[in-house]
Amino acid sequence: MPVFHFHVPRGFSVAKKINMADAANRALSEGWDVPKGDRFITITEHQEGELHIDPTFMDMERSKDAIILEVLIGAHRPLEQKKMLFKLLVQYLAEMASVRPDDVFIAAIPVPNENFSFGKGEAQLAGIAPRW
Amino acid sequence: MPVFHFHVPRGFSVAKKINMADAANRALSEGWDVPKGDRFITITEHQEGELHIDPTFMDMERSKDAIILEVLIGAHRPLEQKKMLFKLLVQYLAEMASVRPDDVFIAAIPVPNENFSFGKGEAQLAGIAPRW
Amino acid sequence: MPVFHFHVPRGFSVAKKINMADAANRALSEGWDVPKGDRFITITEHQEGELHIDPTFMDMERSKDAIILEVLIGAHRPLEQKKMLFKLLVQYLAEMASVRPDDVFIAAIPVPNENFSFGKGEAQLAGIAPRW
Repeated sequence: MPVFHFHVPRGFSVAKKINMADAANRALSEGWDVPKGDRFITITEHQEGELHIDPTFMDMERSKDAIILEVLIGAHRPLEQKKMLFKLLVQYLAEMASVRPDDVFIAAIPVPNENFSFGKGEAQLAGIAPRW
Repeated sequence: MPVFHFHVPRGFSVAKKINMADAANRALSEGWDVPKGDRFITITEHQEGELHIDPTFMDMERSKDAIILEVLIGAHRPLEQKKMLFKLLVQYLAEMASVRPDDVFIAAIPVPNENFSFGKGEAQLAGIAPRW
Repeated sequence: MPVFHFHVPRGFSVAKKINMADAANRALSEGWDVPKGDRFITITEHQEGELHIDPTFMDMERSKDAIILEVLIGAHRPLEQKKMLFKLLVQYLAEMASVRPDDVFIAAIPVPNENFSFGKGEAQLAGIAPRW
């Protein structure tokens, strides 16, 4: 149930957007052994004046195509798993969607598993040990 | 101060969007006894390639009109209250806005009450016992 | 690495949006002594029926130009720093972007510093004492 939210500048093609979603899904599946079907992703395009990303902060060389990626993750995830996910996200975004590694800012928001509902208004993961 | 963020596919009518907001407000009011005036809701429409929701994961039958709903909730809320909110959200989204129960993915992000400001830059809920 | 997300009604000019981003950046820099380069901000415009903000809840007098501002902050920030940030945000949004103080709803979502990546898939702030 990690949920991804991409914030991108205007002008990305539909194909690129789909490739970005595929990359996120693959990173999650390979890095955390989450089922491929666990795919819940939004992309929001921002017009002129609506996306502000510093070009060099923290020694990066960001382009005009830099993005912000937020992901809601299970609050139980240890640091090593977060590092693994970040690494694979950047790798597959580059390989599959031509997003440069310096252009990917990520924030992972911790959310307890019991706070997710996959449908029907049920908290399907409440009361069970975390698998994902 | 729960804040709702709906992510929807393109093509929902203005009336449907308003009904969705009304449904969220009603679920909150009835489920948690929050004042009706506590209404802070955004809806973001996603174009082609910008919204990815698996059609069947976790045994749901999702349609092309499936949505992702995020809600910022007070970090003090116990599981039973979260379950109640999820249940009512799905019920009223179906009754008032014709959103199918299988089509509603929900994530509730915990936020301490002192982290909200209702205006004027004040943290109105800091230092008092949670009412909402 | 605080990340700001503004949700605004349709019709704000590009100049106003840029001024809002500048105001958030200035509040952060002056209030928390964060480097000016730490600038990661999105603005999302909402069409008719997509932004619902109560006009009077909690004794405010909100206009049709009211906004919702979310900010991802380091989970280590104490209350006094949050109050300082809220105060400066509202002050500079008014002075620099003509956003009325009653029109600014803020939610600050706590995120551990190790959950951020500034690029290259690295968790640059993991394992070090928080500076920002």
